[in-house]
Amino acid sequence: MDSKREAQDTKIRVGIFGGSGYGGAELLRILLFHPRAEVSLVTANEQAGKSVGEVHRNLYGLTDLRFVHAPQELESLSDLDCVFLALPHGQAMEVAPSLPESVKVIDLSGDFRLSDAEVFAEAYGRGHTAFEFQSGFVYGLTETNRERIKRARLVSNPGCFATATLLGLAPLVANNLLSGRVIVDAKTGSSGSGAKPAANTHHPQRMNSFYAYKPFTHQHVPEIEQELRAVGDWTTELVFMTHSLPVSRGIFASIYVETKDEMTADEASKVFADFYREAFFVRLVKGSPDINWVKMTNFCDIGLAARGRQLVVFSAIDNLVKGAAGQAVQNMNLMFGHDERTGLMLAGGNP
Amino acid sequence: MDSKREAQDTKIRVGIFGGSGYGGAELLRILLFHPRAEVSLVTANEQAGKSVGEVHRNLYGLTDLRFVHAPQELESLSDLDCVFLALPHGQAMEVAPSLPESVKVIDLSGDFRLSDAEVFAEAYGRGHTAFEFQSGFVYGLTETNRERIKRARLVSNPGCFATATLLGLAPLVANNLLSGRVIVDAKTGSSGSGAKPAANTHHPQRMNSFYAYKPFTHQHVPEIEQELRAVGDWTTELVFMTHSLPVSRGIFASIYVETKDEMTADEASKVFADFYREAFFVRLVKGSPDINWVKMTNFCDIGLAARGRQLVVFSAIDNLVKGAAGQAVQNMNLMFGHDERTGLMLAGGNP
Amino acid sequence: MDSKREAQDTKIRVGIFGGSGYGGAELLRILLFHPRAEVSLVTANEQAGKSVGEVHRNLYGLTDLRFVHAPQELESLSDLDCVFLALPHGQAMEVAPSLPESVKVIDLSGDFRLSDAEVFAEAYGRGHTAFEFQSGFVYGLTETNRERIKRARLVSNPGCFATATLLGLAPLVANNLLSGRVIVDAKTGSSGSGAKPAANTHHPQRMNSFYAYKPFTHQHVPEIEQELRAVGDWTTELVFMTHSLPVSRGIFASIYVETKDEMTADEASKVFADFYREAFFVRLVKGSPDINWVKMTNFCDIGLAARGRQLVVFSAIDNLVKGAAGQAVQNMNLMFGHDERTGLMLAGGNP
Amino acid sequence: MDSKREAQDTKIRVGIFGGSGYGGAELLRILLFHPRAEVSLVTANEQAGKSVGEVHRNLYGLTDLRFVHAPQELESLSDLDCVFLALPHGQAMEVAPSLPESVKVIDLSGDFRLSDAEVFAEAYGRGHTAFEFQSGFVYGLTETNRERIKRARLVSNPGCFATATLLGLAPLVANNLLSGRVIVDAKTGSSGSGAKPAANTHHPQRMNSFYAYKPFTHQHVPEIEQELRAVGDWTTELVFMTHSLPVSRGIFASIYVETKDEMTADEASKVFADFYREAFFVRLVKGSPDINWVKMTNFCDIGLAARGRQLVVFSAIDNLVKGAAGQAVQNMNLMFGHDERTGLMLAGGNP
Repeated sequence: MDSKREAQDTKIRVGIFGGSGYGGAELLRILLFHPRAEVSLVTANEQAGKSVGEVHRNLYGLTDLRFVHAPQELESLSDLDCVFLALPHGQAMEVAPSLPESVKVIDLSGDFRLSDAEVFAEAYGRGHTAFEFQSGFVYGLTETNRERIKRARLVSNPGCFATATLLGLAPLVANNLLSGRVIVDAKTGSSGSGAKPAANTHHPQRMNSFYAYKPFTHQHVPEIEQELRAVGDWTTELVFMTHSLPVSRGIFASIYVETKDEMTADEASKVFADFYREAFFVRLVKGSPDINWVKMTNFCDIGLAARGRQLVVFSAIDNLVKGAAGQAVQNMNLMFGHDERTGLMLAGGNP
Repeated sequence: MDSKREAQDTKIRVGIFGGSGYGGAELLRILLFHPRAEVSLVTANEQAGKSVGEVHRNLYGLTDLRFVHAPQELESLSDLDCVFLALPHGQAMEVAPSLPESVKVIDLSGDFRLSDAEVFAEAYGRGHTAFEFQSGFVYGLTETNRERIKRARLVSNPGCFATATLLGLAPLVANNLLSGRVIVDAKTGSSGSGAKPAANTHHPQRMNSFYAYKPFTHQHVPEIEQELRAVGDWTTELVFMTHSLPVSRGIFASIYVETKDEMTADEASKVFADFYREAFFVRLVKGSPDINWVKMTNFCDIGLAARGRQLVVFSAIDNLVKGAAGQAVQNMNLMFGHDERTGLMLAGGNP
Repeated sequence: MDSKREAQDTKIRVGIFGGSGYGGAELLRILLFHPRAEVSLVTANEQAGKSVGEVHRNLYGLTDLRFVHAPQELESLSDLDCVFLALPHGQAMEVAPSLPESVKVIDLSGDFRLSDAEVFAEAYGRGHTAFEFQSGFVYGLTETNRERIKRARLVSNPGCFATATLLGLAPLVANNLLSGRVIVDAKTGSSGSGAKPAANTHHPQRMNSFYAYKPFTHQHVPEIEQELRAVGDWTTELVFMTHSLPVSRGIFASIYVETKDEMTADEASKVFADFYREAFFVRLVKGSPDINWVKMTNFCDIGLAARGRQLVVFSAIDNLVKGAAGQAVQNMNLMFGHDERTGLMLAGGNP
Repeated sequence: MDSKREAQDTKIRVGIFGGSGYGGAELLRILLFHPRAEVSLVTANEQAGKSVGEVHRNLYGLTDLRFVHAPQELESLSDLDCVFLALPHGQAMEVAPSLPESVKVIDLSGDFRLSDAEVFAEAYGRGHTAFEFQSGFVYGLTETNRERIKRARLVSNPGCFATATLLGLAPLVANNLLSGRVIVDAKTGSSGSGAKPAANTHHPQRMNSFYAYKPFTHQHVPEIEQELRAVGDWTTELVFMTHSLPVSRGIFASIYVETKDEMTADEASKVFADFYREAFFVRLVKGSPDINWVKMTNFCDIGLAARGRQLVVFSAIDNLVKGAAGQAVQNMNLMFGHDERTGLMLAGGNP
């Protein structure tokens, strides 16, 4: 067997369910160029039969893949090594349990993130039809769950707001530095609303808009609180507010906390640097991050400002990459024993 | 009767059919502050019962008007002086013929612009159900038809692309200065696609897009050719190409012509200045116009560049104002004997 | 004397110092159409001699005014009734004291807002050369200082961030409803940085940017705290964070407070409605405001969300209108005995 | 010697002159991840000493490179294999002649594109100080000059507008299909104006702007005409008009030609497909291309529309990639015997 053949044989055979949305588009953008993966299957019921490059015209000429209908017999997918579920909330729970045991699964929806069925029902406005499988999922925030992810067969990929917020809070909660309520003022670009046109993403208005939505009640809130309890002694109140930005990509979270003792930004920065010393994709920056510098990348940029016991953490990601597809691939890398950076050395442009 | 009462009595009682779209929104923005008009009726079947300020939140607090269903008995609207039809193509032809003779009508749709029924059917992809009324309509390009509009009961307001193009070509055609084909490279902002969300106005993609659409076949083309024949001896070929801009408002037309003799930009400018000497809303500018300077206004800015017999006319308007609602009000002013500028001294911002 | 002549005679003769920046541009856009005012003088040293319409091309054709050098002999300006100072920080203090006593003055800069010279020096990084005049100025937040403004000769117009923040907090502070620290997460459009090109307003980057700046230390903070003390018993800590939005116009402040007792959004809304019952330009909205609905207008839109004792106030303005030139004209109206809405019934577009 | 060591030894040692601008930023974004190249030197006199990631924050954490002053002794650079000159016009002519003969040179400026010194002087407004070297340069439009580029030591990389225009016209001119004048209506994003803030790229205005500039006289015009003469029998008149788009990246050229005989879009498409049968980076698309689909990539997307003898070619590129740094790397690949796609399999996002 020659070395080229060998290399191909070791490629991860990937299936993507729900390839026509923005999450699927990003998975394809990343995985088609991933040196250790090969996309074998990509489903999109409404686009079945069309070529990937016809639907995602950014990929035109870069792949011969075609969308197919989601297979009825999921057990037959045993030739796959890894399945990404980039389906709307509520659909992953119908697919994941039927996939062969030999297949690793990374679910980008919210279906398996919450460990409490009642909390799930309230957050997502629906009952869960496969909750018995939830406990088998590891929450896929790579930077806090790296070791568990390496061993996982089932990973539930975090929500975009949750990723930005948790990466901004985890070092402080893990070190038990906080007192009092925490306020997260989070802002997202329009791609966070998905590929389907809607009133709130109608260009003539959105381009001049900024507004808040779902005050206190965004479905990522319970996920954030659950994971903060997992990293430390989280008992405080979380005020979480989501806003809409007139850009396509990017989440920026301004996180307002009180520290138990006075702390300078430099001191806080050391806490973060220590917590993230092995986290390639978290970049600590002077002053404020800017979504311009993380767009199209898997980075989370974090900056800090402090005055007395008031500490503000600024956390910026690309909602579709570190907030979705990029982190999913980062998790796949770990689950298959690869360097987590494989296929993710993506740099956005300066302008 | 005191003078204040008198002034009120002379206000034009206006009805607007189709007030929930962008054309209707702009009519309301202008007419609610028009010193000689009063909006008595505004219809929007899907929004009936809602206040205008709830639907057009830019007008919240500025009016107590509510949307109503379009009345069944149109003959009963004889208390109105003027009706604006801001309905989708195909609906104005059902309303206009039934309005009382005492009511003046300004139709913003394409239903009554074309004097040839076959051309209409081809351009709009539908048959005409009231074509016998078409000849009663005056084409409402104010700057070329001012005297006829003053005497008209029925005015068919020009399309947005047609307005920008005709104002850029009329002086040249009227003076019989052209030879050879004319190429119009026209670009429009996203509000030109209307208030309903659609794939081509989905913010995440539109904000980074520029593309051409409907090559050669935009429905404004026959309207442009018809009116060029009306102002002069137009026999040449028109190549008309529409493109989409990632702004909300604005049309910019780059019009490429050959003049019979060599002409400098200054010489051409004199032709335009002479043709538009009474046209307050046409501003001749040095160099290029910029849609930034006409946004929110009723101005058409025109600039010129020349080399030998090659002349380029740049024409910029706000598609919703001079390209729709503003010009409609300009026509109303003339039809009711007012200064055409009344209620239209609108300045956009610098930034 | 006929009535038309009389009306003209009673027009306020206005001078604008610093007419070439964005504040000046907006003053001109509003005042050129103000029925009770007449712009007699507009200075801009670098643009002296140029027509206003050449510099602010949105006003081309709407005025014959020309920019002049700032006069050396300010005492000679006694033919003016009102002077607006739209000068950079530090320059108003050189002009205001020398203006004739007969002239009313509205200063849009920060020079006379702060009643403590040391606080001023720290906030603006310069000493004050005319601090003895500061106590003569009334702080021009119309909605809280209306009666004092009516009687004032000198008004110091609020900063843009201060306007949005104070209007969001004043009802709560005046009614002594708050406990604990207050967090203001404020975002501004790029026009807030002025008309001069700079790295942070360079289009290729700004269009995809969102970032924080001047954490804790924005120069509007002391102004906000000073005025909160003026309206109520303000002793709490203010965490104020400014961010940059990729739009041209608009400020959106998300204001996080704790109320002494639990309060629903409806209950809080009643407090606001009562406080602003005479404030035409404050609009209470359901849910969140949106900068899209206040752009180009003098409105401040306020929305509320509550959970237990957590209350969030959303406040949205156009930074150049209610945050600068519009509020300045609103104050002028009051100072000259006019309805505060005169010349300010400005509606922005829907798209 | 093991194979890994060998591969490293064969990496192209690259130097970049002028690394702080947008052209330099893109070269770095591409070359830092190029499997067969290694950036050994990057100059930027004003940023000397700073790390690349501090200036181009999109690259923060991805490289340890630092900017250095341009070396005085250029002959000493013989350890380099390839130098990219991303300097302002006029500076490359001072550097290129002094580089060692062993070093291959790719100049991204306009200094060595024009083979006529007088034409150069007129287009660039300066005399040439090293014109005797010009004839040694091969014009680097990869798709038309591939074989010559493979053998070249000196390549002059095309201008961005020239690239989009030439790729749209070359197949037609090479096949001698055209008659009559050609009109190019070209539009560019703001990054084309470079990294230095200026009035025309000031965000508050640019975001709502569209305007024409440099009518007839853009410096890329002579370059286009020279190369059209190189590919075929070009004797016609070129009307070239440049416009500014409110996006960061992208050039879209609408090219209006008359064909000698009638031609359908499909027939024309076959001409293009044949001409570009080996051109991976030219993608023929149905209907219109969209700059959204080429952003961040090295693709040129071409679409066609026809009516009778009227043919319109739409050509879209990313001005910084295929219009500058990407094409430069494509040329480097050929000059060093690599597949031209190496390091350039860049996909932009869908949104």
